[in-house]
Amino acid sequence: MPDIARRIVLASRPVGDPKPSDFRLEEIPVPQPEPGQMLLKTEWLSLDPYMRGRMSDAPSYAKPVGVDEVMEGGTVSEVVASNNDKYRAGDIVLSRAGWQTHLISDGSGLRKLDPQVAPVQTALGVLGMPGMTAYTGLLEIGQPKAGETVVVSAASGAVGSIVGQIARIKGARAVGIAGGPEKCRYVREELGFDDCVDHREPELREKLKAACPKGIDVYFENVGSPVQDALFPLLNFFARIPVCGLIAQYSATELPPGPNRVPQVFRDVLTKRLTIRGFIVSDFWGRFDEFIREMPQWIKEGRIKYREDIVDGLENAPEAFMGLLKGKNFGKLLVRVG
Amino acid sequence: MPDIARRIVLASRPVGDPKPSDFRLEEIPVPQPEPGQMLLKTEWLSLDPYMRGRMSDAPSYAKPVGVDEVMEGGTVSEVVASNNDKYRAGDIVLSRAGWQTHLISDGSGLRKLDPQVAPVQTALGVLGMPGMTAYTGLLEIGQPKAGETVVVSAASGAVGSIVGQIARIKGARAVGIAGGPEKCRYVREELGFDDCVDHREPELREKLKAACPKGIDVYFENVGSPVQDALFPLLNFFARIPVCGLIAQYSATELPPGPNRVPQVFRDVLTKRLTIRGFIVSDFWGRFDEFIREMPQWIKEGRIKYREDIVDGLENAPEAFMGLLKGKNFGKLLVRVG
Repeated sequence: MPDIARRIVLASRPVGDPKPSDFRLEEIPVPQPEPGQMLLKTEWLSLDPYMRGRMSDAPSYAKPVGVDEVMEGGTVSEVVASNNDKYRAGDIVLSRAGWQTHLISDGSGLRKLDPQVAPVQTALGVLGMPGMTAYTGLLEIGQPKAGETVVVSAASGAVGSIVGQIARIKGARAVGIAGGPEKCRYVREELGFDDCVDHREPELREKLKAACPKGIDVYFENVGSPVQDALFPLLNFFARIPVCGLIAQYSATELPPGPNRVPQVFRDVLTKRLTIRGFIVSDFWGRFDEFIREMPQWIKEGRIKYREDIVDGLENAPEAFMGLLKGKNFGKLLVRVG
Repeated sequence: MPDIARRIVLASRPVGDPKPSDFRLEEIPVPQPEPGQMLLKTEWLSLDPYMRGRMSDAPSYAKPVGVDEVMEGGTVSEVVASNNDKYRAGDIVLSRAGWQTHLISDGSGLRKLDPQVAPVQTALGVLGMPGMTAYTGLLEIGQPKAGETVVVSAASGAVGSIVGQIARIKGARAVGIAGGPEKCRYVREELGFDDCVDHREPELREKLKAACPKGIDVYFENVGSPVQDALFPLLNFFARIPVCGLIAQYSATELPPGPNRVPQVFRDVLTKRLTIRGFIVSDFWGRFDEFIREMPQWIKEGRIKYREDIVDGLENAPEAFMGLLKGKNFGKLLVRVG
């Protein structure tokens, strides 16, 4: 056990895209657990788009990380010393230790992980928050029916990749939108989507139209980019739009330029009777037991595949996170800390 | 029975606001019913905002009225001659005879009205399509709970007036938005809304904020005007926005000017987990029996009030309709044809 703990704090609130100086790596003595407490050592840190929101003090659904505070984040951690009856050294737990190597915990909010069931870091991805986000947002709001067409943006990402595969399990046509030929090939050939459109290519609307010959019944929104302009005209009557994320906008210092489409959006909502609904995963925690029963089964049957993009070393988290916001990751982004 | 029937046809598709020359009054011989048929004579014609959509051939949820065809519309009609076993002369029926004095009907799609139960023209208003629109849109999509705040635009109109009163029956705070002090006074004092804001007054956002001290949980959208800019920031987490109509936009030849608010709308949808959902009354016909049981009871108890704006003579329908699109009516707009 090293004597020095390391942590990354928010050095300043980013204006626009986060930059290296918005983060600061600090070294402190490893804290010691008191009676009832234990010391957790971080093995895996999850990097997720929502963290950009926590760096800002704009009003949102969660309170921001304070300047000089440790960046928040889900982790898989090992219990290295325990004065808590419920855990012992060697236990692996799902925690929210944040961007740091060590955390003192009283045991609240932890979930014990069994390495025999699945690689423990999947609790941060396909078997964790991103997988649950895909599962509940698609099933609760998207409600795909057999024969319908589901389109998902950021289709090679931690959430989008699962959305399309569940859509196919439910008998729907799955069409991804992703950035670049390599991601599109992966989405089609490895994840088994029916099609995938590269949003960097010209003539996006024509390509989407060709990929969705029966229109679009569910659009699972992860990005919030001008791709919407190409997509909205293809929406069918009674289409559902779960709004899960808007990664293209998180760092915008002003709203992106473009045509004034609010009136058109509401026209489409009215004439096509669309449903646009925002959610975050915690709105649907009630379905966790069902999720954690179904998803491992689907993985076992080969119906759900996933990909991890692993970065080594806590010190590399800021750069990896900045890349995530630019779509540079390929699969679920994880930092191997331990 | 006159020998001459009169009808108003769509003379040309309006560009922008409809004008008198877009309509044409025609006289034809009164048609005669064949075996199994009957002759209906129009007593009341309902004028409703949706008719503007039918005058356009832009894609929508219903096919447009053809040029030179009779304008569509709901009517209360009297059976004046019947070769149909199910109806006899003197029966009063709810029909869709359109903007004309007479119609040959085989009886399909009619509903017999009992003048003892309610004034028959209420089947075009509070006990008909507009009332049912308010009832289902508010209860199915808005789902107001006791203590919540419901805001409705066009609050003195046929739909809006009912929305706010049902909101109060459900224990919610009802706040109207209407044009001009007379309508606002009516909404507050006669309909019993908790408050009403005049959208023509300056400092709309401040006034809305004062009228909604606990924010807005349901915004029932009838208008689609820039009032949204003042209103969206006041929406609470998990607010619901039934989109019923966009009367401010129906005649727009180009989308109204304004800031590019699509990204902001989606941000609000995400961070506040809003639901925006379009509907038309026919999506919810399954609740008609419940509606037609509850609404007369509420009227009898004095909990639902309504106001009719009556215009005499079919020839005055075009001008009345053009006024409706400008908010010149005050209450449910009806043409007394017979």
